[in-house]
Amino acid sequence: MRLMNKAELRNIRLLIAYDGTDFSGWQRQSKSRTVQGVIEAGLEKIHKKKITLSGSGRTDAGVHAAGQVANFYTSIKNMEASRFVPALNRILPRDIRILKAEEAPLEFHSRFDAKYRTYRYNIIPAYKALPWDLRYAWQIWRYPRIDKLNAYASLLRDEMDCTYFSVPRDKSLSRNRTIYRSSFWAQGERLIFEITANAFLWKMVRSIVGTFLYYEEKDLSPLDLKNVIVQGDRSLVGPTAPAEGLFLWKVGYYKEYEAPLPIP
Amino acid sequence: MRLMNKAELRNIRLLIAYDGTDFSGWQRQSKSRTVQGVIEAGLEKIHKKKITLSGSGRTDAGVHAAGQVANFYTSIKNMEASRFVPALNRILPRDIRILKAEEAPLEFHSRFDAKYRTYRYNIIPAYKALPWDLRYAWQIWRYPRIDKLNAYASLLRDEMDCTYFSVPRDKSLSRNRTIYRSSFWAQGERLIFEITANAFLWKMVRSIVGTFLYYEEKDLSPLDLKNVIVQGDRSLVGPTAPAEGLFLWKVGYYKEYEAPLPIP
Repeated sequence: MRLMNKAELRNIRLLIAYDGTDFSGWQRQSKSRTVQGVIEAGLEKIHKKKITLSGSGRTDAGVHAAGQVANFYTSIKNMEASRFVPALNRILPRDIRILKAEEAPLEFHSRFDAKYRTYRYNIIPAYKALPWDLRYAWQIWRYPRIDKLNAYASLLRDEMDCTYFSVPRDKSLSRNRTIYRSSFWAQGERLIFEITANAFLWKMVRSIVGTFLYYEEKDLSPLDLKNVIVQGDRSLVGPTAPAEGLFLWKVGYYKEYEAPLPIP
Repeated sequence: MRLMNKAELRNIRLLIAYDGTDFSGWQRQSKSRTVQGVIEAGLEKIHKKKITLSGSGRTDAGVHAAGQVANFYTSIKNMEASRFVPALNRILPRDIRILKAEEAPLEFHSRFDAKYRTYRYNIIPAYKALPWDLRYAWQIWRYPRIDKLNAYASLLRDEMDCTYFSVPRDKSLSRNRTIYRSSFWAQGERLIFEITANAFLWKMVRSIVGTFLYYEEKDLSPLDLKNVIVQGDRSLVGPTAPAEGLFLWKVGYYKEYEAPLPIP
C-alpha cells in the first residue's frame, strides 16, 4: 500500500446507530465482535484494503448508540459521501445502521473535536413491560420519586471531580469533567435520565444511575449525597446500572461545519 | 409425586410476550434454549416440582410473540392467579414477559380450544432504519405497491388448500386451513401484513410474505398467482421471509369465559 498524500484523500464522517446487545463494545478487539471492528470490515470490503475508523469515544459491551459519530479517510473519488449510507448498510449486520455520511474537513477528528456527549438511560419502573422494550431499558420493581432523583441530578453541575462515579481501573489523567445538564423525566411508561458533559469517565453514567436509585430508595437527602460525592469514597457507591438501559445519544461539535452549540 | 385428583388443581392461563431472537422456538428441547423450556423452569422454581406448560401452538426459532397463550395446572391454593405475573417475571429472563395470568376452567386447553390465530409480519421498506426496529422487522430495499400486495392477499379466503405455502417436512394430516382475514397496510415507515386463520401450516406466514413480495416485484397478476397457488407447485414459490419480522399476535378463544369472537 503506497503512502497517500492527504490531499488525495477525503474525510468522511458517519452518524451511526447500533444495538449493543451482541457486541463487546465499540473498540476493535482481535477476538471479539465489536462495532468498530465490524464497520471497519465493511469499509475494507468497499475499499479492498484496510481502513481505520475513528470513533468519538468507546462504548462498553451491551451499551447502545443512537448517535455515535466516527470518521475515516477514503481515496474513492467518484462517489458522493451520502452513498456510503446504502453501500455500508447493505453489507453491515442489522444491529448496526449508518444514519448519515457526509464530507468533513480533512482535519476533522470525531474524538478530539467533540465538544460534548449526551447519554440517555432508560428505566422501566413497572413489573409489566414488553420484552422488546426491556432489551433497551432497565426494569426496576418500584416507582421512584422523580423529584428526589432530580434533586440529586442538580448536584451534577459544572466542572467537578467525578472520582466517586469512576472505577479504579480508569486510567484517565484527570477525573474532572464538566457537566452541562442532567435530569430525569417520565415519558410514557418510562423514566429517562439524560446527561450531557464534555466527556465521561468509564462507566460513569451507569454508576450515577445505579447510585441515585439506590439512595432514592434509602431516602438519603441531597445534601448527604453531596457530601458522599465530595468524599469520593467508592465504598459508599450504589450498584452500577446494567448496560442495556444506556444509549450514547448525541455527540456535539462546533466548527465551521456545524451550527453553534445549543449547550451549555 | 403422588397423583393429584384434578379437583385439587387449578388451571392457570397465561398471556405471554417474547422476543424470539435468542430462542430455538417455543417447543421444549433437551439441548436448546426454548420459550416453553425456560417458562417451565420458572414454574418448577415456584412449585418445587416439574410443571408442564401447554402452548396454543409452536413458533419457530427467531419468531416473536405478542400474545402467545399457554396454560398449566397448579396445586398452589393460597395465591391469586394474577400473582403469577410478578412471581414469574422476577424469575424469567427479560426476553420473556408474562402479561396476564388468570383462572381458567379445568377443561380449558390453550391449543385445542383456540378458534383462530393472528400473525403479524413487519416489513421496513427503506434503507434508513434503526437497529432496534430491525430486530423485529424485515428490511427490504424498495417500496412495494400495497394495492398489488392486497390484491394477492384477497386470494387467501375461506377454507383452502395451503399446500403451496407449506414445506415438504410438514406432517399435518390436512393442508386445508380456513383464512378469515389477510391484508397489508402502511403504518409509519413500516409495512404490516396481518393474517388470521383457524390454524397455520409450518412456515406458512413467512412463505406467503416472501412469495407475495417476490411476485409483486415481478409484477405477476393476481389471477396468475391464483393459478400458481391452486397448482401447489412449490418450485414456483418465492423465498421464505426471515423469522425476525414475524409475531404471533393473538390467539382467539370463545367459550363461557370469553366474549364472543369478533372474527369471522
